Amino acid sequence: MDEVTFRPTFEQYTYTFGGAAPLRSIRPGSVLRLWTEDAFNHALRSVDDLSTEKVDLRYVNPQTGPFHVEGAEPGDTLALHIVELTPARDFGASAAIPFFGGLTSTDRTATLQDPLPDTTWIYQVDRARNTVGFEARFGDLTLELPIEPMLGTVGVAPPGGEVRSSLVPERFGGNMDTPEARPGTTIYLGVNVEGAHFSLGDGHYRQGEGEACGTAVEGAMDATILVELIKGGAPAWPRLENDEALMAVGSSRPMEDSWRIGQVEMVRWFEQLYDLHPMDAYQLLSQITEVPVANVVDANYSVVVKARKSLLPETRAFDGMHAELRRRATQL
Amino acid sequence: MDEVTFRPTFEQYTYTFGGAAPLRSIRPGSVLRLWTEDAFNHALRSVDDLSTEKVDLRYVNPQTGPFHVEGAEPGDTLALHIVELTPARDFGASAAIPFFGGLTSTDRTATLQDPLPDTTWIYQVDRARNTVGFEARFGDLTLELPIEPMLGTVGVAPPGGEVRSSLVPERFGGNMDTPEARPGTTIYLGVNVEGAHFSLGDGHYRQGEGEACGTAVEGAMDATILVELIKGGAPAWPRLENDEALMAVGSSRPMEDSWRIGQVEMVRWFEQLYDLHPMDAYQLLSQITEVPVANVVDANYSVVVKARKSLLPETRAFDGMHAELRRRATQL
Amino acid sequence: MDEVTFRPTFEQYTYTFGGAAPLRSIRPGSVLRLWTEDAFNHALRSVDDLSTEKVDLRYVNPQTGPFHVEGAEPGDTLALHIVELTPARDFGASAAIPFFGGLTSTDRTATLQDPLPDTTWIYQVDRARNTVGFEARFGDLTLELPIEPMLGTVGVAPPGGEVRSSLVPERFGGNMDTPEARPGTTIYLGVNVEGAHFSLGDGHYRQGEGEACGTAVEGAMDATILVELIKGGAPAWPRLENDEALMAVGSSRPMEDSWRIGQVEMVRWFEQLYDLHPMDAYQLLSQITEVPVANVVDANYSVVVKARKSLLPETRAFDGMHAELRRRATQL
Amino acid sequence: MDEVTFRPTFEQYTYTFGGAAPLRSIRPGSVLRLWTEDAFNHALRSVDDLSTEKVDLRYVNPQTGPFHVEGAEPGDTLALHIVELTPARDFGASAAIPFFGGLTSTDRTATLQDPLPDTTWIYQVDRARNTVGFEARFGDLTLELPIEPMLGTVGVAPPGGEVRSSLVPERFGGNMDTPEARPGTTIYLGVNVEGAHFSLGDGHYRQGEGEACGTAVEGAMDATILVELIKGGAPAWPRLENDEALMAVGSSRPMEDSWRIGQVEMVRWFEQLYDLHPMDAYQLLSQITEVPVANVVDANYSVVVKARKSLLPETRAFDGMHAELRRRATQL
Repeated sequence: MDEVTFRPTFEQYTYTFGGAAPLRSIRPGSVLRLWTEDAFNHALRSVDDLSTEKVDLRYVNPQTGPFHVEGAEPGDTLALHIVELTPARDFGASAAIPFFGGLTSTDRTATLQDPLPDTTWIYQVDRARNTVGFEARFGDLTLELPIEPMLGTVGVAPPGGEVRSSLVPERFGGNMDTPEARPGTTIYLGVNVEGAHFSLGDGHYRQGEGEACGTAVEGAMDATILVELIKGGAPAWPRLENDEALMAVGSSRPMEDSWRIGQVEMVRWFEQLYDLHPMDAYQLLSQITEVPVANVVDANYSVVVKARKSLLPETRAFDGMHAELRRRATQL
Repeated sequence: MDEVTFRPTFEQYTYTFGGAAPLRSIRPGSVLRLWTEDAFNHALRSVDDLSTEKVDLRYVNPQTGPFHVEGAEPGDTLALHIVELTPARDFGASAAIPFFGGLTSTDRTATLQDPLPDTTWIYQVDRARNTVGFEARFGDLTLELPIEPMLGTVGVAPPGGEVRSSLVPERFGGNMDTPEARPGTTIYLGVNVEGAHFSLGDGHYRQGEGEACGTAVEGAMDATILVELIKGGAPAWPRLENDEALMAVGSSRPMEDSWRIGQVEMVRWFEQLYDLHPMDAYQLLSQITEVPVANVVDANYSVVVKARKSLLPETRAFDGMHAELRRRATQL
Repeated sequence: MDEVTFRPTFEQYTYTFGGAAPLRSIRPGSVLRLWTEDAFNHALRSVDDLSTEKVDLRYVNPQTGPFHVEGAEPGDTLALHIVELTPARDFGASAAIPFFGGLTSTDRTATLQDPLPDTTWIYQVDRARNTVGFEARFGDLTLELPIEPMLGTVGVAPPGGEVRSSLVPERFGGNMDTPEARPGTTIYLGVNVEGAHFSLGDGHYRQGEGEACGTAVEGAMDATILVELIKGGAPAWPRLENDEALMAVGSSRPMEDSWRIGQVEMVRWFEQLYDLHPMDAYQLLSQITEVPVANVVDANYSVVVKARKSLLPETRAFDGMHAELRRRATQL
Repeated sequence: MDEVTFRPTFEQYTYTFGGAAPLRSIRPGSVLRLWTEDAFNHALRSVDDLSTEKVDLRYVNPQTGPFHVEGAEPGDTLALHIVELTPARDFGASAAIPFFGGLTSTDRTATLQDPLPDTTWIYQVDRARNTVGFEARFGDLTLELPIEPMLGTVGVAPPGGEVRSSLVPERFGGNMDTPEARPGTTIYLGVNVEGAHFSLGDGHYRQGEGEACGTAVEGAMDATILVELIKGGAPAWPRLENDEALMAVGSSRPMEDSWRIGQVEMVRWFEQLYDLHPMDAYQLLSQITEVPVANVVDANYSVVVKARKSLLPETRAFDGMHAELRRRATQL
């Protein structure tokens, strides 16, 4: 198994899906040991660092990649298995960036109101207890919250020659900001360009569903990723699998469209897996799906539709790829 | 403790919140043992019963109630604790009603396309195994799914003299269709009219988040409910509490507005419970909330915002009402 | 022709569609000469009258009516022809009500931001020049704007026993807030209850499309209305006709759903009028419709879809009702 | 005055904003005489040409450009004045493309319904009468409709290194599909990259507001365009000006967000032009704006907010640029 260990220099980060030359060419089956920078590009280090003063918008949400996957062609399916995510610094940062987030007007949901106060929170990492510490900025409350690491952003180059900001979630994955992108999860993405050109980043030490204020507990991350390639079978939208569940992610606006996309993608998957008529898949999913919302703050809103395996007949999605990657992960 | 046992006759069901004379006057502290009819008003009994032929739209989503709560005044808080829900029939029914549901055009998301085929599914109840049986209509798949009973509709009379169909979820509760309205949950609703005039119904033997096809496993239900009254303190939107979590439910369109409402209602609750500044509540909720979507099919879409108690300092919401009702429930 | 002249006392105004006893029973063919109070119920009379201090939310958008139309039955079509609208006072008022309007967060599009400043504008009526005067509150600009009187609210009782606030636009008409409801326009509404029970109010001396700040130049109005009844033929959604155009009004959320509703209603009307296949109606409307948005601020957003008669073959919608009412209007 | 006459070869069309090398470098003040290909890339020539069979999705909405404007820098304002648009072929084509358009489910508003029938309409151009002919495909109706030529797509390269499909309307302009982009209109676009790199295309012989079926009367166009550069002053969103009105275009989802964007952009413009406080601009616009919807079918929905000059004090937007370009246009 090829191993690639990589920590980008500042100049090597990319800020788009598509449009950047690959940093490395890797073979299917490779394991990557990557460093990902935090979404603020390490600009917020204390509560006195305000996003309007310190964050350079040209350099937000830096991605580690892109990687060229040998043999990947449009229509293929890239499988990225998250083996491990470990906080790479001793603190995470979160911020209420003016006119960004879910409970404020934005450049899209535009109003004439004043912004909320530009505010930064710093969460200290306690590795022994595996927690981050919430400290109120306008009061005394402190809380220990479990670290539940995830990657906010995982994506491939889009089709049609498009180049999209790393802030965007779409068909190609990208900034989906779902807590389901955690260790133990396999992410299936349709390949749009030769080599797939995937990249990832935006580590969160933890995040609620919706990422309400627009930012999670953002932190640099050490990430171990297994990369595989499935010839053909590209899903229309990102699919996820872990030991417990099958999932699909829709990203659009309004939010009901994101949900519709995810739900239809699951109907299509159920048709494949269980040879079900779409009406029966629709009915079955109506009674069993969970909907752990991902983000309601990005360029598109992302909604996860999730079906627990324990409720379903046994199946081998993508020919058992997830189980195989889990097996390999234990051997690293 | 007053006990009221009640099974409405067909003529006694109501189809609105507001606008109906109370069936009974009850005292705070009462326990109600109620029968609720299914949302189709028992019209679908076999897969050959099609919704377009059998379901009378004047009589859908029948409610048991309204009940007049003695002493309840506008601005008070009604607490309804669901002690127990038991399927009252041996089958549940679900249907894909033409132009109703989440993966079809509707009278609102209007298109020129043909409807999906009018289809009915019947789920047999296995009381011994506590399951309902899914049977594909266009194939052979059968599945046992756990019964997870809930009430789709719980609400009070709206303010301002409005009368709303029992199909509507709103500030007054109503047809929220959230699986969180399950045994062990306390629902807090702001009182709008003297006596509160609450009613409930729409039992689901189980339901996925979103209620994608528009109907759950609909079934008549035996429901045991504890009723309490809190003077004052009316929440702006429905709040829920169980042993694990605090929740708020927003119901509007588009779906991001439902989410915003629920999130802001939780911010306000956190301000009260923990004396938090709204910015700190916003930050904290951003990192811990779960968002188990309720429905994406009704007159308004309902989204639940949920905060786990295990992540939070101990608190006594509504002066410990939920714990007290749990205690009383064990003594029934 | 029966004539009814009516100016309600304060106690006679109604604030809902449905739920109020008719003030008068009238015969089809009647002409009504009505006074309508302004939407603030005359509470804002100077720029020092702030909406948060002076406006009583129980008494906003007072309606003149309801009127019982003899012979009107569910499924019939009520035709209301606006003959004349004349400002009944020497000033109109507008206000930026906190958390109400299009460029602010609201109770639905909920954020944590502060409200915009509660501000009132008074427009003096110049009857000789037929203008109202805009006067900046935070600067010196003054402007004369033509009076273009319209009725913000025209509706019938809803079906299913519902009672809706007069602030709501829906299938039954109501608070559509479209400038197209002007003298010379005939409004067709489907009858839902025996007698139709229509009412109207919310006169605007002028209004932009969208009613951005939430209120128009609100003023009491003298209104002359011709009432006719068409047996059968109830449209699903309100239709409007004037000498230049056919129109349909959709009211829902999000705004694209309002537009879809209006567009589909026009497709259906074109099928009836020109015996067109829906695909041909769809194509034709795609190339000719105008979309003068009505409101983006009310409980539902209202969008008008409009087709100019000059582009179309001659036709007699509703058997020539509009032309007939225009003829009668000239004889008053 | 420099004159550039240009008709691209098939290989020279571009399908993105950003990401393509400029075809020409031009000086501010130049007049361009351009050919634009139709949105189907000339694939639909008879009613028997179905979009699913003939249209190659890699080559839809071909753009003529990009042009590099000498001296244009980020933060500058590009002014494009449409002098003349003339149908360059004797027919226009329109199509109901499966799962594309406003009255069908789409890849975003995803449902499980069948698509509408793939249908093509051909409109013959009558140059003498200046009309196009509608011919029903499923009936006999024929109609002459006036030619009202417009450009569906006008845009510059986006910021941040993004490359966007020519199907997308956004801050950078693009596929706004507004009938207001007609002869006599000046379009102001903020410059994002050195040289601006603007392109245009997607001629429509006529189009209704909303472009309901997803396509207008699409046709190749001879376009005469005056190009000017204003140093600085870049608007946040596209602004338009003609002799009658000032306009702003918002493009997003849901449609109320597009409207909010356009309305706020006009508030900002009014602040600049009339030294108005934002609350006074908000109030004034509430009473005078028209909202001619552009498209409800593209990747973003576009809404135009329009203020008539006849209602406003005289002003010289962008230092009188529009009047100057009108003057020059008369001298061509």
